[in-house]
This record gives sequence, C-alpha cells and structure tokens, in this order.
Amino acid sequence: MRFGAVIEQSDAASDLVLLCEHASNHFPTEFGTLGLTPEVQSAHVAWDPGALGLARGLAARLGATLVHAPLSRLIYDLNRPPHSPGAMAERSEIHDIPGNRGLDAAARLARVQAVYLPFHDDLHALIATRLAQGRTPVLVTVHSFTPVYHGQRRALEFGAIHDGDESLCRNILRNVHGLASALNEPYSAADGVTHLLRLQAVPYGLSHAMLEIRNDLIADAPGQEAMADRLAPAIRAAQEGV
Amino acid sequence: MRFGAVIEQSDAASDLVLLCEHASNHFPTEFGTLGLTPEVQSAHVAWDPGALGLARGLAARLGATLVHAPLSRLIYDLNRPPHSPGAMAERSEIHDIPGNRGLDAAARLARVQAVYLPFHDDLHALIATRLAQGRTPVLVTVHSFTPVYHGQRRALEFGAIHDGDESLCRNILRNVHGLASALNEPYSAADGVTHLLRLQAVPYGLSHAMLEIRNDLIADAPGQEAMADRLAPAIRAAQEGV
Repeated sequence: MRFGAVIEQSDAASDLVLLCEHASNHFPTEFGTLGLTPEVQSAHVAWDPGALGLARGLAARLGATLVHAPLSRLIYDLNRPPHSPGAMAERSEIHDIPGNRGLDAAARLARVQAVYLPFHDDLHALIATRLAQGRTPVLVTVHSFTPVYHGQRRALEFGAIHDGDESLCRNILRNVHGLASALNEPYSAADGVTHLLRLQAVPYGLSHAMLEIRNDLIADAPGQEAMADRLAPAIRAAQEGV
Repeated sequence: MRFGAVIEQSDAASDLVLLCEHASNHFPTEFGTLGLTPEVQSAHVAWDPGALGLARGLAARLGATLVHAPLSRLIYDLNRPPHSPGAMAERSEIHDIPGNRGLDAAARLARVQAVYLPFHDDLHALIATRLAQGRTPVLVTVHSFTPVYHGQRRALEFGAIHDGDESLCRNILRNVHGLASALNEPYSAADGVTHLLRLQAVPYGLSHAMLEIRNDLIADAPGQEAMADRLAPAIRAAQEGV
C-alpha cells in the first residue's frame, strides 16, 4: 500500500514547483472514512477546499509542476511530522475524528509508511533531480483557510507564510493587489505549519512561500480562476525578484 | 541499481543513531574506479579512514543503530546536496578525479538516483519510523580528518560540529578528556559540511552532532577501540544532558 505524491506537468519548464498538501478529501477504502459523516468528509477539516483548483489554475498560467496529496489530511497530514498530534488528528476544530482516536504505534506507523514517506520521497526525488540537472526549484504551497474559525470571522483574505528566508513571501505580497493580505497570517512557522518547507526547501536553501487563501473566495471554479488570474502575475513577479 | 544505506543494529534500544557517510572506499563495478590508482582509492580523499571502525565501536558500547555508506564519497558524497561541486568532486585536495571530470547532467542524475536518494530515503524512513513510535532519535555522525592538509599539520585531535542547536556538541566536548578538542573545527556548518544533519535532523528538531577525529589516532583496530572507549562515555553523558 503506497499513496505517493500526485505529480502534474512533471516536465514543466518553470523552476516553480506548486504544492498542495491538503488538496484531497479522498478517503480510500484501505483506511475507511474514520467514522466521519459525509458532511465532515467534505468540510475544511478534511482538506483545503478550493486549493487544488486554484493550484491547477496557477500551474497552467505559470508553466509549473504541481505536486499534490492523494488523500485527506485526516488520514495523514503531509504538512506535519510523524510525532505531531496533528499528523493524525483526534480532533480538528469542532469535530472529533473517531477513526483517529487512540491510534497505537503500529497504526500510526502504518500511515507514516503508506502516506507520509511515499509523498515526501517522491517530492524529494523531484527536487534532487532538478538540482542535479542544474535547476533551482522555487517551492510555493497553496492552502485555504476557513472564513469562520472557532466562531470567529476572519477579515484576512490572503496570507503568505515563510519558514526560513522571507524574501519570496515579501515579494509576493508586494505584488498582490485588491486583497486583504498579511505576512505570516492567519498563522506562522511558530505554529508548526511549515513542516513541508522545513523538510524540502530549507535544507537546500530554496526560495519558498506558503500561500493561504480564504476559502469562500475560491469555493467554485470561477472563483478559483479569478484568484489564479490575480495571484499568477504576483508569483511570477516575485520569482523574478521584483 | 540502488545503493541504499547499510544499517547495523536496526533494532537497537538506544535512541542514538550513529552515522558514517564516509565509511567506505568501495568502488563498485557499476561506477568503476574513476581512473584512480589503488593508492588514491585508499587515501582520505576516497573515504574517512578509521571512521567506520570507530563508529562500530561506539555503536557496540552505546547500544546504538549505525547507518553507513555503501561506497566511496568520490562516487557520491552523501553529505553534499546534488548541486554541490563536492557531491561528485572533480578534484579533492591534491588529487584529480578523472572519472568525475565534466560529468553531464545525465551522469550526475544517475548517481543521485542510485546513491544519494536511496541512502537518504532509507535514513529518513528510519527516523520517521522512530518518531511514529514515540521515540526521539539523536543523530551523531562520525568522521575523520587528515593530519596534514594542503601541507599544513593539524594539532587538533577532535572536533564537534553542529548545524542548528549546538547543545549536544557542547555537552560532548565538556565530557571528552585527554584530546586537543574544539567546537566547529576543523570546519563548521558555514563550510557546507552539515548537509546530512540539515536534511535529516534539523527539520525534526533532533539533537545532533558531527564528530571529527584526526585519522592517525584511529588508523587501526586498537586505536579505534581506544578512541571508542574514550568517546562513548562522553556521548552517553551528553545525551543525558550532563
């Protein structure tokens, strides 16, 4: 059982690599539905609604490779290390996740070996391959956040979060117009949300950014296309150091 | 063709994981001898003489797992990223490496895929497995350095080098006696010598140290055993935070 990374446009010309760790709300039969109702399976705790559609829109506009998750973050959150409680969350915002309650070491290990390691091995292979070819990947992860969290409404529409070097985030924010935007909001590396970047970008000194878009703005295809139209030029300009 | 990590005592009880990236001066037939004489194949440019024997002595004394390289650093230096000139060095100290001269992208990529990725995937799997099991690995790499480098004699006998957190190195140095020792000598992270730690330890916040021993002190089995007797208690005490 191996749920590796889904890679689209692997031969793209751009050095930009778009990532979507929370692309999917798929619950494969091997893991079942974790005791969740269909409503919770399609809620934001199971995935980042709209993020994959936006990431595909960006990949098309920017000629970039896109790497995304094959299954729900509730089975394994690819942006969390194996020892993090959030990797296989027992509770997420207001929802209990019955199928994750009291997992023993063997069950946790099975998910690490079936999901976490295959995804990160595949991504590492892509990055190392490009480095060996003399290319320098730029890693941008695409996420969405809920407009209401624990009952609080969020005014923020767009956030850019970094782990090490902040320059790509600052350049993107400088080039994004018409959105309520902020650096390191609605959370930051100190909240443990940059594991993928820390594992795959920082060791190689690669420019990186984690983008967070409020999910009501990208709830359907037209919204995702409009947001891609807005963000693509900002990412392109930021990559060029503008 | 897959030259993965060699793992000894994989079921060891200690959380200490000893590493030896430059353990081997093996030149497998798949890559040939790179045009090197038998003398250069056994010189310090091809491997870290004595390091594997010392690492095995430490692993036995400390009940630790040992992970080491299956082939010479001149074929691929596992402590260098794929884009580093040192990964497949054309020249090392005073020696030209004919088989590494003018490697094209395909040849570099073949070595990355056959050597670099398998080793680091295997090591990553070991670390992630332990994290999933609730264990916290401590990574200590074992290296040796030459007493004479570019004609200069080195008085240093023992160095401890860190990438991120320096506490394990400082604790080891505090507990080592009878050796001319220093922190971040004969080189430091700024020289690009901590790639393995940066890739495998730092993203998980794991305690780590790179140990460098002058190779004339561990040239034979008695010297390696004596050095293991000296260093093992220091590493044990450092791990306990003494």
